[in-house]
Amino acid sequence: MSASSDIQAQALQAREAARAIAQLPTSAKDALLRAMAQALEDDAAAILAANARDIEAAAAKGVGSAMQDRLRLDDKRLRGVADALREVADLPDPVGQVTRAYDRPNGIHVERVRVPLGVIAMIYEARPNVTADAAALCLKAGNAVILRGGSEAIHSNTAIAASLKRALREAGLPEAVVTLVEDLRRETILELIQLNDIIDLVIPRGGEGLIRFVAEHARVPVIKHYKGVCHQYVDSPASLDLALDLLVDGKVSRPAACNSLETLLVHADVAAGFLPRAAQALRARGVELRGDARSRALVPDMAEASEDDYAAEYLDLILAVRVVDGLEQAIAHVQRYASDHTEVIVTEDAAHAARFVQALRSAVVMVNASSRFSDGGELGLGAEIGISTTRLHSYGPMGLEALTVERFVVHGEGQVRHPDLL
Amino acid sequence: MSASSDIQAQALQAREAARAIAQLPTSAKDALLRAMAQALEDDAAAILAANARDIEAAAAKGVGSAMQDRLRLDDKRLRGVADALREVADLPDPVGQVTRAYDRPNGIHVERVRVPLGVIAMIYEARPNVTADAAALCLKAGNAVILRGGSEAIHSNTAIAASLKRALREAGLPEAVVTLVEDLRRETILELIQLNDIIDLVIPRGGEGLIRFVAEHARVPVIKHYKGVCHQYVDSPASLDLALDLLVDGKVSRPAACNSLETLLVHADVAAGFLPRAAQALRARGVELRGDARSRALVPDMAEASEDDYAAEYLDLILAVRVVDGLEQAIAHVQRYASDHTEVIVTEDAAHAARFVQALRSAVVMVNASSRFSDGGELGLGAEIGISTTRLHSYGPMGLEALTVERFVVHGEGQVRHPDLL
Repeated sequence: MSASSDIQAQALQAREAARAIAQLPTSAKDALLRAMAQALEDDAAAILAANARDIEAAAAKGVGSAMQDRLRLDDKRLRGVADALREVADLPDPVGQVTRAYDRPNGIHVERVRVPLGVIAMIYEARPNVTADAAALCLKAGNAVILRGGSEAIHSNTAIAASLKRALREAGLPEAVVTLVEDLRRETILELIQLNDIIDLVIPRGGEGLIRFVAEHARVPVIKHYKGVCHQYVDSPASLDLALDLLVDGKVSRPAACNSLETLLVHADVAAGFLPRAAQALRARGVELRGDARSRALVPDMAEASEDDYAAEYLDLILAVRVVDGLEQAIAHVQRYASDHTEVIVTEDAAHAARFVQALRSAVVMVNASSRFSDGGELGLGAEIGISTTRLHSYGPMGLEALTVERFVVHGEGQVRHPDLL
Repeated sequence: MSASSDIQAQALQAREAARAIAQLPTSAKDALLRAMAQALEDDAAAILAANARDIEAAAAKGVGSAMQDRLRLDDKRLRGVADALREVADLPDPVGQVTRAYDRPNGIHVERVRVPLGVIAMIYEARPNVTADAAALCLKAGNAVILRGGSEAIHSNTAIAASLKRALREAGLPEAVVTLVEDLRRETILELIQLNDIIDLVIPRGGEGLIRFVAEHARVPVIKHYKGVCHQYVDSPASLDLALDLLVDGKVSRPAACNSLETLLVHADVAAGFLPRAAQALRARGVELRGDARSRALVPDMAEASEDDYAAEYLDLILAVRVVDGLEQAIAHVQRYASDHTEVIVTEDAAHAARFVQALRSAVVMVNASSRFSDGGELGLGAEIGISTTRLHSYGPMGLEALTVERFVVHGEGQVRHPDLL
C-alpha cells in the first residue's frame, strides 16, 4: 500500500471512530479522559524516555536551549499534562446542549442542538503537551482527532498517543478516535488537508509559514491563527496609573504570547505625562522602545520606528510607540496594522470606549483591561484549542463549543407544508 | 489594467465599503433596504427590458422552457422581489446582539457580541431574484457583498444591481457595498475565490459542478450546499395515515427542492399495511417508484432500485423504496447514503425517535414532520441565504445570524493578569 493511501485509510478509520465518540454520553467521555490522564502517569517512564530521545536529537541538531526547553517533559510537566486532561473532564459537555427551542405557528417544535463537528485534524509544532491537550478537547466535544505534530517531538508524541490509545482500548472504544500521523513528510500533510469528504476541520498551530502552507493548500475548512499584533491605545481622559499597569502586564508578563502588546498608541494630550513614565517602567523591565518623532521628542534615546515596526509581531521585549491626535487617528492606525486579534483602549470616556469597540473588527476588544486576558481560560471558556483570527465559525479564543456546530431537531404531530395536496 | 487586477480592485473596494455598512445602525440599514425595494419598483421598465434580452438569448440558445421560466421576471415577480427586501428590513438585526454576558472572578465583564463577517461573495446560477435577495441578507447582517451570477441572467442582474446601487448612492453610502461581477470568465471566479485576505466567505449556490469547482479551488472559506438526499423512515409502531401525509407532502409538493424526499424506508412489520397504500397515493400523483425485492413483492409493477437509485438526488417525481428490518437497519441505510441534509422518522415510539436523532448526523432531523420544513423561513429564521451541508460555522438552513460571527468585548477597571509584575 502506498503512503498516499495510508493517510486516507487512517482518515477513513477516524471517520468511523467519530461515530462512536459522537454518541458517547458525557459520563463515559469524562471517565475516558480521566483514564487517559491515569495512563499518562502510569506510562511516565516510557514517555520521559521517549522525550529524552527527542531532546538528544534536538541537541545534536544544534537546536537552541529555549526550543529544547519547550520540548522538554519532566515528572512535574507530565503531571501537569495529565491534570489538564482531568480539567477537561470537569468542563461542561457542549454536545447535546439545546441553545434555543421554540414552536412555530403550525405547531412544530424546533430545537437548535449542538453536535460534534466529526473529524478534526490538528497540525502543530514543538510542545508535546499539545498532543494530549488537543486530543482531550476534541474528544470531550465528541470528535475524533488526527494529530500531526512536528518531527522534533515525534518520539514524545508517539509515546503520549500510545497511552491515550491504551485508555481507548481499555474503554472498549476504537483506537482510531485518536490518530497520530507518524509519516512526517510534507506531502502527507498535503494529502491530509485535501481529504475534504472525510475531515471536517483542520486547525494549524505554529509558525506563520506552517499556517500559510495549510491555508493555501487545504480543501478541508481551516481555522487560522496567523498572529497577534495587539495594540493598546491610551486615550484622553484616561487614568495614567491604570494605563501603565495594563501596559506593563501586556508587554512584559509573557512577551512570546500572541496576546501580548506590540504597539502603544498615546493621545497627544496625555503623551507628555505618560510616555516618560511608561518608558522608564518598561526600560526597567528590559523593554526596547521604537517610536515616531513625537514620541522620541518626549523620551530620550528612543529608536525610530519604521513602517515594519508597526506591522511587526515582535514576540519579544520590544514595543512600537506612536503619539496620535486622538481617538479617530488611533482607530485608523489599528485598522491599518491590526491582525484582528486583540486591541485595548484605556479611557475614562464611555462614548470613546463604545466608538473604539464599534469601529474595530478585531476578535477581542478590551476596555480598561489587559490584552493578556485574551485567552480561553481567562475569558471563561475553560480551555483553549487555539485563537481564531478568521471570522468564520469562531472568532477569538476557541473553547469546546467551537468544536461543535448547531443543528436542527424538529418534533411535529404530522404537520405538512402543503395540506391542499393531500 | 488587467482583468486580474480588476477583480482584486473591486474586492478591495468592497472591503472598504464593508466598514461603512458594518457600522450602520439598524434603522439606517432598514431604510436602505426599503429604498432598494422602491428603486426596483421604480426601475421596473428597465429591469423587465433587460430580462427580456436574457430570455431572448436563452431562447436563441435553445434553453428549455422550464429554465426560461426560472429566468423570467414579470411585474408580479418583480414586486415579489421588492417585497422580499421589505421583509428582510422587518427582520431583527443580528449585529450587536449580545449572546452571552458574564463576570469573571477577577471582575472583568465579558460579552459575546455578534459582528458582521465582512465581505461575502455569492456565486450563483439562473434566477435573477437571488441578486436582490442575497444582497439584502448580506447588508442586513452588516456585510458587503460581491455577486457573481450566471451568464444567462447577466442583463437582468446588471439592471437589478444598478437599482440597488442607486439606492446606496442616494443614501450616501459607497456603491461598493454591492458589487456585481460582470466579467463572467471562469478565471475571474478562480481569482475571486482565492482572495483570502480580502473576502471572508464565499457561498456557491447552483449545480453540484459549480459547487465542487468552488470548493476545490477556493482559499476563501466556503459554505457548501451539495445536495439533499432526504430520507423518510416509517417505523413500527407508527401512524400510517400520518406517514402517508408526510410522504405525499415530502415527495410531491415541490420535487425539485433540495428538501424533498428521495428515499422511503419502511419497517418490515408495517410494510404490507403501508406500501400498497403509499404506492397508490404517489402513483395517482405521477410518482414513479423504484424498490428492493421486499418492496416489489408488496407493490405490483414496481421497478427495481439499483445502488445508484439510493444515492440519487432525483429532484423529480421518482422515489426509491426499501423495506428494512427495523430502526437500526434504517439508520445504517441513512448513514450510508445521506447527504447530511434532512431526514424524517415517523414513529409512535419516543425512544426510537431519540435513537434516530442521536445516531444520524444530518443537519436537520424531523420527528413526525415533513422534510419540506427544512427551510429557513419554515424554521423561523425569517429568510434563507442557503442550506449548509458542511458542519462548520452553520449547518442546515442559514439565516441572518449565519452571516455574522460572535466576538469578545471585555470591560474592566484596570485588571491585569500578573499583578506581581507591577
